[in-house]
Amino acid sequence: MTDLHVVLHPELPPGVADFLEGVAGLALHRSADERAVTESLKNGAEVLVTHTWRDSFLTPSLRWIAGTGAGYEQYPLDKFKSQGIVLTTAAGVHSQCVAEHAFALLLSLTRRVGEAARNMTQCHWEALIGEELTGKKLAIVGHGRIGEEIARRAQNWGMSIIGIKRNPDRYSGCVEDIRGIDQLSDVCAWADIVVLSSPANPDGSHMIGRKEFELLGAGWIVNVGRGSLIDQAALIDALTSGELRGAGLDVTVIEPLPVDSPLWKMPEVVITAHNAGASPGFGTRWGAIFEKNLAAFRGKGAWVNLLPAEAMDRS
Amino acid sequence: MTDLHVVLHPELPPGVADFLEGVAGLALHRSADERAVTESLKNGAEVLVTHTWRDSFLTPSLRWIAGTGAGYEQYPLDKFKSQGIVLTTAAGVHSQCVAEHAFALLLSLTRRVGEAARNMTQCHWEALIGEELTGKKLAIVGHGRIGEEIARRAQNWGMSIIGIKRNPDRYSGCVEDIRGIDQLSDVCAWADIVVLSSPANPDGSHMIGRKEFELLGAGWIVNVGRGSLIDQAALIDALTSGELRGAGLDVTVIEPLPVDSPLWKMPEVVITAHNAGASPGFGTRWGAIFEKNLAAFRGKGAWVNLLPAEAMDRS
Repeated sequence: MTDLHVVLHPELPPGVADFLEGVAGLALHRSADERAVTESLKNGAEVLVTHTWRDSFLTPSLRWIAGTGAGYEQYPLDKFKSQGIVLTTAAGVHSQCVAEHAFALLLSLTRRVGEAARNMTQCHWEALIGEELTGKKLAIVGHGRIGEEIARRAQNWGMSIIGIKRNPDRYSGCVEDIRGIDQLSDVCAWADIVVLSSPANPDGSHMIGRKEFELLGAGWIVNVGRGSLIDQAALIDALTSGELRGAGLDVTVIEPLPVDSPLWKMPEVVITAHNAGASPGFGTRWGAIFEKNLAAFRGKGAWVNLLPAEAMDRS
Repeated sequence: MTDLHVVLHPELPPGVADFLEGVAGLALHRSADERAVTESLKNGAEVLVTHTWRDSFLTPSLRWIAGTGAGYEQYPLDKFKSQGIVLTTAAGVHSQCVAEHAFALLLSLTRRVGEAARNMTQCHWEALIGEELTGKKLAIVGHGRIGEEIARRAQNWGMSIIGIKRNPDRYSGCVEDIRGIDQLSDVCAWADIVVLSSPANPDGSHMIGRKEFELLGAGWIVNVGRGSLIDQAALIDALTSGELRGAGLDVTVIEPLPVDSPLWKMPEVVITAHNAGASPGFGTRWGAIFEKNLAAFRGKGAWVNLLPAEAMDRS
């Protein structure tokens, strides 16, 4: 069997390149920059490992994109379909880690650890009266694998939970109350806490805007999904008015968040830099998916996390 | 029935004074400062609501100290015993809240939210690779009510758990592996994470010193118990050497932590100001205990959280 030519995007999660080094039968093309990615693909490489997409990557030899992210809104799925290019994602690889991160953001708000950490820069000791999750109502919006991991972890925390899912009929998990996205308004009115763990809307529209913040009222919001899910101007207004009690954001509309965003200076906001899924365990878990898909690519066994045809049709 | 004279220390947790305002049959003495506390007690008040102790509070009329803290290391128990003064604590009132706080501190370390919050002061967006609790080994040292609430919340987080307790034989809770304090070294060697939720040692000695940090190695420590439980010089050395991966401290040896402590400036440290138990729910829950004890004081029903005679003997 001749070596399979695999191009590595210069920005990959920790452990991915190291994992690939250990896989037999691959000719790896590490890239100093995206120009080098395009160059390797033009020279006939068949596989691209990436989370970022540029149109210049669409080359005649490309057969398989082994994505390192859970989402796929950045890819031109219609073109992949027409050219017979397979896309696999890292869906599920991040789930446990992102669920922990969602809790980390939420507890940093309710226990005011984000404020205390900023007080540390001034060596300032000030007792802050926090809040308790016990007894609160938690809405998980976008109840897929990540949402389920959040709900599992929340089982013994004394919270009521409602999950929202595009296809609630297919659900079998630990949450008793799962609803369709058409129930979003009712659930926002019910909730104390909204955690967003949904992929982006295909058209980039938001799920949570002025109306939803008004319904949520004096609650907290955490976003480990996509920045576009929240109307950020409405978020800033809800925080400025003092109505919303806090926001934990791993994602923002523009990333990096611009330095002139008022969100940076709000004590009731905690921002992390789109790293909810970043973990030393990533490479190994992603690699297990890659190996199954490498076998499938070579005609042995089934694909894992293959983007289904109906998703491609959605674009 | 004549009114019972109750003196309120000037520094009480949120909601306690408001709760007492609503209790019939009490003559409340609010105090501007500790001198006023002493004055009211000298004038014949029988009940003191406090978490702080000064020897000047020991007056002939004092019959009952309704403590607002879980611990009691600050009180002269031998004198209480000899003068027939009853001490009740707020043990259990904070448990759920402190357990959430312990998780907040731990996740701020592993998901590096403490660092991200400090980056916010510079409007600095930097992806930080965190760690996962999933698969980690958690030691809960001081497995009382707070420890049990931590363990309950950790049930679905994919961690192995060992609890350490002074009297492991009396334990009936959710942790399968409960050991005596004599196993501390073995458990530190086993653990990735040590959470301290123990009262102070009566003699003020530490539980975790150089030896225990060496055994723990590349792990994390969280202290929601008492500052004296950790040899702080050894902690600083373990962090400085890079061996210990992080420390989440709600309590320190001297409080407030002095401004010249190197702990303030360490990125892998998160400090909160002894507010793990601070919650808007405190007053109501403390009040439920107070009302039962008020009835007991008047000869109706049993005391709750009465400091047992053997604890008084221990001092």
